[in-house]
Amino acid sequence: MNFSSKLMEQAVEAFAGLPGIGRKSALRLILHLLSKEQTDVEGFTQAILDMKKNIRECNHCHNLSDREICSICDDLHRKNDVLCVVESIRDVMAIENTGQYRGLYHVLGGVIKPIEGIGPDQLNIDSLLERIKKEKTREVVMAISPTIEGETTTYYISKQLKNTSVKISTIARGVSFGGELQYADELTLGRSIVARTPYNISD
Amino acid sequence: MNFSSKLMEQAVEAFAGLPGIGRKSALRLILHLLSKEQTDVEGFTQAILDMKKNIRECNHCHNLSDREICSICDDLHRKNDVLCVVESIRDVMAIENTGQYRGLYHVLGGVIKPIEGIGPDQLNIDSLLERIKKEKTREVVMAISPTIEGETTTYYISKQLKNTSVKISTIARGVSFGGELQYADELTLGRSIVARTPYNISD
Repeated sequence: MNFSSKLMEQAVEAFAGLPGIGRKSALRLILHLLSKEQTDVEGFTQAILDMKKNIRECNHCHNLSDREICSICDDLHRKNDVLCVVESIRDVMAIENTGQYRGLYHVLGGVIKPIEGIGPDQLNIDSLLERIKKEKTREVVMAISPTIEGETTTYYISKQLKNTSVKISTIARGVSFGGELQYADELTLGRSIVARTPYNISD
Repeated sequence: MNFSSKLMEQAVEAFAGLPGIGRKSALRLILHLLSKEQTDVEGFTQAILDMKKNIRECNHCHNLSDREICSICDDLHRKNDVLCVVESIRDVMAIENTGQYRGLYHVLGGVIKPIEGIGPDQLNIDSLLERIKKEKTREVVMAISPTIEGETTTYYISKQLKNTSVKISTIARGVSFGGELQYADELTLGRSIVARTPYNISD
């Protein structure tokens, strides 16, 4: 791309460094910002800087937070004896969006990946075990991706909790709602038959 | 979307205000920036602020520029008696990318759109006519979109130049290279037959 302005080129390169944004999209974003008022553009950059500077990890659950304790851990109306273990804060947001869960979370910060040098020590597993002991957790819901690494992580954590009274569950796997059987992958369909649930007629 | 952090929510909203970026993409961009070093994020926002603050219109051609005269107008190796008239700086970049044009440009800043209240006075047409007179332009290449408004604009400018010795041309319209005839729209195909060009066998 030929730029008549070095300043514009630098701004386009800055945007094009973000994931999923090519140089053409970057140019469109830049031209949009140029058409805005100076104060709007300053507001945009300030929001980013404020976040980067002041955001922190929740001391309890490792979720992102503005304060030492995040708004979920701080919510007295939530069940504090149920812990949902997830890989990332994106999973927290996805589960929160369903509105179906009222317990607390624990963000691992990834899954065990020996190939990439990520062992249990690199994840927030120690703090999870401590929390379970201290907070008298009754149930741990493992909501980890059903990949080989994810299953390994679930297995590892379950093993650590073997000799405790904590109930361990995993989120249900099966055919999606609205999905047609013929399009479900074999593993999912196979497991959903093995793990079939009783059908209750409510009358 | 449920955010556990107000700061993150503000940053996501800032990104989601850009064209073509939804809240899910915004979240991905934000998480990317969070994973970067503080100095990288500051570099990103600084590039945007620098551009917004210091970029200006070229005094000659209304292209975006870092200085009073843009690098194209300032280039002594370009033909200064040919002017290509375009709607926006994006068109300048598109034509520059072809590497096929070595004259100068004039950016109108849009086309005549009476419905939206955009007449000749709202565009850089006066400065175009002045330039043509002052710079002793030999040829004006109209590279305006082939829409009704674009054709009107081309017609209006041509009429203003009627009694001068300036040669006016428009960029060629026709079937795209690599395009199949059956998929070309009727207007383009029709025009490309009417405006057929002699076929030269070079041997």
